[in-house]
Formats: sequence, C-alpha cells, structure tokens
Amino acid sequence: MLVWALPLHSEFDGPMPTLFHLPLSPFCRKVRVALAELGMPFVLEEERVWERREAFLALNPAGTVPALLLDNGHAIPDSQTIAEYADETSGMPSLIGETPFDRAETRRLTAWFDGKFDREVSDHLYRERVLKRLAGRGSPETEAIRVGHINLEHHLAYIDSLLSRRHWLAGERFSLADITAGTQLSTLDYMGAVDWQAHQPAYEWYARFKSRPSMRPLLGDRVPGWRPAPHYTDLDF
Amino acid sequence: MLVWALPLHSEFDGPMPTLFHLPLSPFCRKVRVALAELGMPFVLEEERVWERREAFLALNPAGTVPALLLDNGHAIPDSQTIAEYADETSGMPSLIGETPFDRAETRRLTAWFDGKFDREVSDHLYRERVLKRLAGRGSPETEAIRVGHINLEHHLAYIDSLLSRRHWLAGERFSLADITAGTQLSTLDYMGAVDWQAHQPAYEWYARFKSRPSMRPLLGDRVPGWRPAPHYTDLDF
Repeated sequence: MLVWALPLHSEFDGPMPTLFHLPLSPFCRKVRVALAELGMPFVLEEERVWERREAFLALNPAGTVPALLLDNGHAIPDSQTIAEYADETSGMPSLIGETPFDRAETRRLTAWFDGKFDREVSDHLYRERVLKRLAGRGSPETEAIRVGHINLEHHLAYIDSLLSRRHWLAGERFSLADITAGTQLSTLDYMGAVDWQAHQPAYEWYARFKSRPSMRPLLGDRVPGWRPAPHYTDLDF
Repeated sequence: MLVWALPLHSEFDGPMPTLFHLPLSPFCRKVRVALAELGMPFVLEEERVWERREAFLALNPAGTVPALLLDNGHAIPDSQTIAEYADETSGMPSLIGETPFDRAETRRLTAWFDGKFDREVSDHLYRERVLKRLAGRGSPETEAIRVGHINLEHHLAYIDSLLSRRHWLAGERFSLADITAGTQLSTLDYMGAVDWQAHQPAYEWYARFKSRPSMRPLLGDRVPGWRPAPHYTDLDF
C-alpha cells in the first residue's frame, strides 16, 4: 500500500479515500492526476483485476480499475465518473470548464482519448504488451503493435493541429482533456513507445504537462519487469 | 430529413439544432430520448458514417454519430458529451441527479451501458448483424452472436438485481441511466434479440420506459431490410 497526498491546497483532515488502481493503467493515471489537481488526497491500493477478487467485485461489479472507495463506504468506479464527482465536490476551479461550450469541448476530447485513442492505440501498444504478460496471457502480436504505432502517428498529428490554435488541448486553460491525453501518453512514454521527433507541438505540450506537480508521483511508478524508457522522468527530455 | 420536436415543455423558437444519427444506433437513441426528456427540439439527419463524408468529418473529426450541430455552427459529438451539455443548458430538472452521489451513481450506470454492455452485447448482436450488412462487410459470425446472447443474460440479471431495491436503475428517479440502458435494449428489442421471459423486473421496467412520450418517435423507426420484432411497438407487450 502506498500513501500519497498532495499537500498544496487541501484542507482535508478525515480518513482518506482509497483509489484501487494499476500503476500503468491510463484510466487510473487520469484519476490520480485529476484528484491531485483538485487537491483531493487519497491512498493508493493496487488491484490485480484479472484475479477477480470477491471483495473488490462487491465494491465495483464491473470489476475494473480505477475505483474510488470513499470513507463513507461509497464506491465510485469509472475514470470519468470519478473525475466528474471530484470536479463537483472539490471546491476548486473546475477542470472541465466554466461555460457549457468549454465543458462540451473538454468532454469531447476526454471522450476522444478515453475511447478512440484508447482503442486505436493503447489497446495495441499497452494492453497487448504489458497487461497480456502480467495476466499470463501469452506474447504480444506484432501486427497489433504495428497498427498501434500507425494509429499513434495520426493521434499525435491531431494533437499538433489542436495546439496550432490553442495553448492547451481544449482551449487556453489546462483541463481534464490534457490530463486524459497526457496520462494515456505517459503510459506509452514509460514504455518508450512514443516517437516525439516529428511532433514538436505535442512534444512541448507534453513536457509542460509532465512538469506539473500532479504528475510527479506517476514519474516514480515502476512496474516489475518493465523499466521505464530513459527519458521518462526527464522533465526537459 | 425528418423533423421532430417534443411540444411538451419547450420555449424554444429559434432555428433548430441538427442531430446527425443512425436510426438503430444505441448512442444516437440515447441522445434522442435525452433531448426529448429535456424538452430540446432538434432536426434529425441520417449520416452513413462508413462513407466518411468530408463535410461531416469537418464537424466531427472522430467521424462518429451522434453529433449535434447547434444553430450557432458549434458541433458537439459523443453521446455523453451531448447529454451532459443538454442537461446543463435545458433549464429542466437534471437527468443526471441532484446530489454528487446520485450523479455518480447515474454516471456509473451510464458508463456501464455505454461501455461494458455495448462491448459485451451490442457489438455482438447489433453491429455484427445490422451494421456489418449496411456497410457491406459480409455476414455475421455465429460465435459472436452466441457470446452476445450469453452476455445479455448476465446484464439482464444485473438489471433485475438493481430493480430489486430501486424503482429506476440509478434510484427512485428516472435518469440518464434508464435512458442509456433502455435505448441499448431498444435496439436489440427491435431485432427481437431480447428474451424477456426469465427477467420479470427488467421486463416491467422496460415497459415503463418504452411508454414514455420521449420514446414514441423511436418506435416509428424503420431500417430498410430490418422489420422490427412483432412486439417492438406494443406498449403492453
């Protein structure tokens, strides 16, 4: 069990919520960064979801991480559900946005990276390589990995194009869209799977994202058998 | 082009937003019912997404339906993004809920049916059969359909168990969770793929859902080459 709390702006002093997670899961990372940005402390507990532990299934019948167990016994699963809950209750400025249009743009891009990017890239490059091995389900298929890399190029080009007219992905302010895209990429970056060279705007945006205090604990993550790429923790990579 | 507006509680009198959709898509149906429940009128336009029409890709680079084009030229894609936007702007009581816990429970179940149910059931029973044919991608695989039916049984049992302690899926009030689950099931029901017999609570809940005025236009949908199951429009089936 790993305890971590962002000291910055929290006035929290009760027992802390527990976040069930897997260290490299992009969805878990999204929630870790979002909670940290919102000043909500939590305790981290690793959950090997493929073991389908009964006590965990009672908390979250979907059997997935992340799942946030509040100190009142209430459990909230699903990364977007947790992020929306935290955004509504933290008392901090919203990570989703102020106006309905801003909020729609943040949610559009959040859905893009949670859904489209996750299916087209992370399924191929992260789950095929890391999860399959952790769960003892054989070796990765080279065709899946090839397709994942082609798709990743398209998504990096899309990020470049968004940044040609904006400072952050959803607009001028840092938002949940940056957290969702940034944490998806952070998992792949840990594995050395991202070729940033041809994508200067995405590269600079990711360096800005990575240097935020909320990202610091994730840069210390280590997965047994997977050493991070050399530049993973380098903030000026 | 089909024009439809719920007369009930709308004070809208400007040009109407356009909802790009496919008639049997569960995600499009979710948005049609949510907008109707919130009293937001719209024009329906069918978008054959597999043709990847350029003008449509300019509105929604993800190339997916539903996408809502507002009269100010702003386009909002993704069913949950549209539903959240409509919920924030309609001026009607929220379909997501009042308290943060209620809202988390609605969003948890919405994510369940948008994600888990869609992947485990609708991918097998709807996309494998209807979409594959419409897009000219060959005939359905019987193994996929067999697995879809097994998974559907588990999900109906989960709905039964929720209803053993609640009037609607997320609590005592009708919510976006009912709309999401109900419209996923309405697509399968159109195709006659749901065996309600062993699931009395789910059956009664679905009959209540189906008799809402917001569902009426969907019961008139017809897809060329797919005649609906005999009980599809029967409100007391």
